[in-house]
Amino acid sequence: MTYGHFDDKNREYVITEPKTPWPWINYLGDDGFFSLISNTGGGYSFYKDALYRRITRYRYNGVPVDEGSRGFWIRETGGTVWSPGWKPAKTPLDFYECRHGLGYTRIRGEKDKLETSILFTVPRGENAEVQKVTFTNNGTSERKFSFYGYVEFALWNAQTDGENFQRNLNTGEVELDGSTIIHKTEYRERRNHLSFYHSSRNPDGFDSDRESFVGFYETLATAEKPASGTSGDSIADGWSPVAAFRHDIVLAPGASEEIAFVLGYVENDPDNKWDLTEGSQKLVNKEALRALIGRVGTPGKIDSALSELKTYWTDLLSRYQVSHPEKKLERMVNIWNQYQCMVTYNLARSASYFESGIGRGLGFRDTSQDLLGFVHQIPEKAKERILDVAATQFPDGGCYHQYQPLTKKGNAGIGGNFRDDPLWLIASVSAYIRETGEWGFLDTKVPFDGDVEPDATIFTHIQRSFTQVLDNRGPHGLPLIGRADWNDCLNLNTFSSDPNDSFQIAGDGEGRIAEFLEMLTQYAKDCDGEGGMHDTAMLFGLL
Amino acid sequence: MTYGHFDDKNREYVITEPKTPWPWINYLGDDGFFSLISNTGGGYSFYKDALYRRITRYRYNGVPVDEGSRGFWIRETGGTVWSPGWKPAKTPLDFYECRHGLGYTRIRGEKDKLETSILFTVPRGENAEVQKVTFTNNGTSERKFSFYGYVEFALWNAQTDGENFQRNLNTGEVELDGSTIIHKTEYRERRNHLSFYHSSRNPDGFDSDRESFVGFYETLATAEKPASGTSGDSIADGWSPVAAFRHDIVLAPGASEEIAFVLGYVENDPDNKWDLTEGSQKLVNKEALRALIGRVGTPGKIDSALSELKTYWTDLLSRYQVSHPEKKLERMVNIWNQYQCMVTYNLARSASYFESGIGRGLGFRDTSQDLLGFVHQIPEKAKERILDVAATQFPDGGCYHQYQPLTKKGNAGIGGNFRDDPLWLIASVSAYIRETGEWGFLDTKVPFDGDVEPDATIFTHIQRSFTQVLDNRGPHGLPLIGRADWNDCLNLNTFSSDPNDSFQIAGDGEGRIAEFLEMLTQYAKDCDGEGGMHDTAMLFGLL
Repeated sequence: MTYGHFDDKNREYVITEPKTPWPWINYLGDDGFFSLISNTGGGYSFYKDALYRRITRYRYNGVPVDEGSRGFWIRETGGTVWSPGWKPAKTPLDFYECRHGLGYTRIRGEKDKLETSILFTVPRGENAEVQKVTFTNNGTSERKFSFYGYVEFALWNAQTDGENFQRNLNTGEVELDGSTIIHKTEYRERRNHLSFYHSSRNPDGFDSDRESFVGFYETLATAEKPASGTSGDSIADGWSPVAAFRHDIVLAPGASEEIAFVLGYVENDPDNKWDLTEGSQKLVNKEALRALIGRVGTPGKIDSALSELKTYWTDLLSRYQVSHPEKKLERMVNIWNQYQCMVTYNLARSASYFESGIGRGLGFRDTSQDLLGFVHQIPEKAKERILDVAATQFPDGGCYHQYQPLTKKGNAGIGGNFRDDPLWLIASVSAYIRETGEWGFLDTKVPFDGDVEPDATIFTHIQRSFTQVLDNRGPHGLPLIGRADWNDCLNLNTFSSDPNDSFQIAGDGEGRIAEFLEMLTQYAKDCDGEGGMHDTAMLFGLL
Repeated sequence: MTYGHFDDKNREYVITEPKTPWPWINYLGDDGFFSLISNTGGGYSFYKDALYRRITRYRYNGVPVDEGSRGFWIRETGGTVWSPGWKPAKTPLDFYECRHGLGYTRIRGEKDKLETSILFTVPRGENAEVQKVTFTNNGTSERKFSFYGYVEFALWNAQTDGENFQRNLNTGEVELDGSTIIHKTEYRERRNHLSFYHSSRNPDGFDSDRESFVGFYETLATAEKPASGTSGDSIADGWSPVAAFRHDIVLAPGASEEIAFVLGYVENDPDNKWDLTEGSQKLVNKEALRALIGRVGTPGKIDSALSELKTYWTDLLSRYQVSHPEKKLERMVNIWNQYQCMVTYNLARSASYFESGIGRGLGFRDTSQDLLGFVHQIPEKAKERILDVAATQFPDGGCYHQYQPLTKKGNAGIGGNFRDDPLWLIASVSAYIRETGEWGFLDTKVPFDGDVEPDATIFTHIQRSFTQVLDNRGPHGLPLIGRADWNDCLNLNTFSSDPNDSFQIAGDGEGRIAEFLEMLTQYAKDCDGEGGMHDTAMLFGLL
C-alpha cells in the first residue's frame, strides 16, 4: 500500500491516503507556540510547555486514536457531512491530500466538486496557530453548505486536566467577543493568560460548550450540530469549554472563498488584566488579544506568514547543502534531517504522539544531544539553550534529567542520578565553540541550580560534569551506571521491585556495582587525579 | 422525561431509558474487588486501590462519555449489531431495562424477540466481577447470532496508564489459557498479580489486541470484529491488551442459554509464580486463577453468589428499620441511605464517575465521617478502618489528608495541614464505642505514621488530635483554618497564586490568620491548658 511520497521541489511530504497505519504528524512553531498536527488534522497545541500550558485537549490512547482538539465539518444542504481531512466525519472523499512542509501543513479534500483546503502554520514570532480555509466550487451549479471550525480547550495543566474532574467540571469559563471565543478558566482566580479561537468571517452560529455541540452520546464523527446544520450559541459554564463557529456559505460555480481562523495565546499584565471600559470587572482585557488577531487574522496575512516562513527555512538550509548523484541522499541531508534536528531541538522529546507531554519536560541529555544537529543553523539559540540547561545543573556536577521549559526549573519527577546527563553538556559546549569559534563562551557566567555560585562559568560547569563521573565509581574504579544511563533502558543500579513505584526509580541501594565498560572508561582511568579536562575535551573532539 | 423508578419490593432502582442525562451508576464489591457500573454497562474495576491496581481501563472525559472497559455485542446473521445495554452499539432496542440493586446490577435488552439479560455482581469474599448472560428466544423461529464479551485491561497503575505511552505501548502481555485470557503485563519483571477474563463456554473466536478487535479508526460502537461477525484470534504484544470472546449461538424458539464470564484478579506467591509443569518459565502459575474460576465461574454459581449477597443485605438492613406512613421515608431510611453509607465507606470518595481514582486515596476525614453512617451494620469493619486510619496519623496529632488503601500508607499527594482531619478521628472512635459499648477500644495499641510510638493507644491518638488544634491557633487564639479545611473549598490560608502549582497547595505563608469561628472555638477557648479531652468528648457526644 502506498500512503504518500516526497515532493523535493516544494520540500514537502505528500500523504494521499488518510488511513495511515498510525497518524503521521508534523510539528508547527519553533519558539513559544507549538502545535502537533496529524495528516487528518488531529493533534494539539501548547505554549512553551506541554505540561503547564496545554492550549487544546488531546486524548492519548483514545478510541479511535487521534480524535479531538481540532475538528472541521462541511454540512451540505442535503444533509451529507464530511471533513476536508477525512476525519472526524470519515465520509469518503473524492480527493484527499495532506502536505507536511517545513513548519506548515496543508490538508486538502474534495467531494462532489467542492474543494476545501486548510493551511496550518504558526507565524514566526507569534503565539498562534493560524488556519486558512479555502473553498472552491469546481462544479457547474451553486453550492450551499455550512462550515464548522472547532477546537476543544484544555484547562491549562495537562496532568490535572485528565485527573481532577471534581474540580475541572466546575471551573471552565469562556467569553464571547464578536467572532472570538476566549477561554479564560482560572483567569479570575490566579491566571493572567488566555487562549482563544477566532474567525475572520462573522459567524452564523457558534458553540462553546462541548456537550451542546457534540451531544452527550455522540462522537466527533457524528457531532450533533454539524449533523443538523445548526448551532446552539452555547456559553460554557463549567464542563468542557470548546470553540465552534458555523459559517453558512453560498458559492457560485467557479467561485472561491477564504476564511482565517486563529487559535491564539496571550499573557496580560496582572495589573491591567480586566477590561474596565464598560465598568465591568468580569470582561478580560482584550488589547493584546485583538492586536495578535490584527497581526495574523486574515487570509492575506497567513499567506505572508507562510512566505516568510519559507524564506526563513531556505536561509537556514542554505548553510549546509551537499550535492550528490543519489537524490535520496540530498533529500535527507539537505532537507529532512536538518528539519528533524530542529524539531527535536524545539521539543527535546517533551511532546509527541507517544510522549504525552505530562511525564517530562525537556531532557538535559536530549537537549545537549539534539543541539549537535542544529547548532550550525541557529547558534544563538543553541547558546541560549546551553545556558538554560547549565543553570539546572547541581554544584556537584549532577543534574536533573529534565527541566520545564516554561519555568526553566529542573523537574525531579523521575529523579536524578542519571550519570551520563551532565557529560553531554561538555559535548554541546564543544559543538557550540567549534561552530562559532567563540572561545570566550567558556567564561560566560551561569549559576548552578537554585542560583547557587552565580560566578560559575560554563567552564566550571563542564569541569563539574566530568568530576561527578570520577566521584561516582564502582568496585573496579570504573564509572558507575546510574539511572537509565548511557542507554535509555539500562537500569542496572536503580531498578525498583516495588510495582507501586515508578519503573525508573532508585531501588534499595543494593547492586550499585554496575559500571560503564566502554570507551569512556579508558579515559576516566587515565586521567584519575590529573588534568581530567584535557582528556574530556579530547574525548568530545574539542581539541 | 421519566428515566426510571424505585422497586421497593426488590430493593432496586429501575432505569428504563438508556440515555440518562449522565451515566447512572452502581458500585459492586465491598472488600477487595470493586467495580463501577453504569446503566449501559460502562465503568471499570480495581482491586482495593483505584490508583495502584486498576484492572480495566476507563476514559474520564471521553467523547462520547462512558465508553470502554466493558463491551457486549450481538451480531445477527443478517448483519445487525446491537448491545443488550444499548451501548456501545447504540442500535435502538425494543426493550431496555437496568436494575441497580444492592451490590449487583442487571441489564436487560430485547430486539426482534431475542432477549438478553446480563447480571453483574462481585461474589462476597471473591476478587472477581462475574457476569451471567442469559439469552432467550421469545420468537417463533430459530435464531443464529454471535455474542461478544469484551474488557480492556489497564496496565495496573491508573496514572501512568494515561501518561507514559513510550513505555506502555511496549509492555502489554497476555497469555491464552483455553477460554481464559490472562493479562500479565510486568509479571515477568516485578509483579506477582494477574487479571483475567474467562468465559464458561468454549469460545468460537477471541481477540486480545485492541486494534485487531476494534480497528484503528473505529469506535466501540462500530468495532470491526462484531461488525463482521469474526474474530482475529490476536495475541497482544504491547499496544493495548484486551480480552474479547466470540460465541456463535443457535437458539430454537423458546429456548434459553446461559454463559458466565469472570473478570478476576489473583495474587501469586512470588516464589511460585511460574507454571513449571511444561518446563517453561514463560507460563504463569494458574492454580489460584483456576481455583477462583472454579468457585464462581458458572451460571449456577453466580446465582448462588447473588442469593448469598441478598441474604447478607437483608441481615445488614434488618439492624435498623423504621416504620412510617410515608413510604418514601421508609425507602430512603430502610434501604438506600444505608446502602449509600456502605458504598461511601467502601470507597471513601476515592473513585466515582467524577473522581478519577488517581489524585487521591481514601480520605482521612471522609473515612471517619462515612463510618458514622454504617458503624451499626458492621462494627468490626469500622474498627479495622479506624485502626488503619489512626496508623497514618503523625505524632503531633496532624495527619495526611488521605491514604492508599492498598499500602495503608499516607499519601502526601495534596499535602497535609488540613486542620480538621484529625479531629474526625475523635468522632469515629466515639461512634464506634457508642455502638458497641467497647470502652476497651480506647486502650487498643496502634502506632503513629511510620510505626512511631508502637505503644500509643487509640486514646493517645484522639488526645493528639485535639492538642494539634490547640497548637495551631491564630491571632485571636482561635483554631487556624488549614487547607481546604472545615469546608472543602475554604483555602483561606493556603491558596496558591502560582498557576503551575496545584490549586490546593500551601502558599507563601502570608495570610495565615484565618480562624475557625464556629462552635468548636468556644470549646477550644474554654479548655486551653486544662482537661481538653473532656470537652472534646462532650463536643462529639461521647459522654
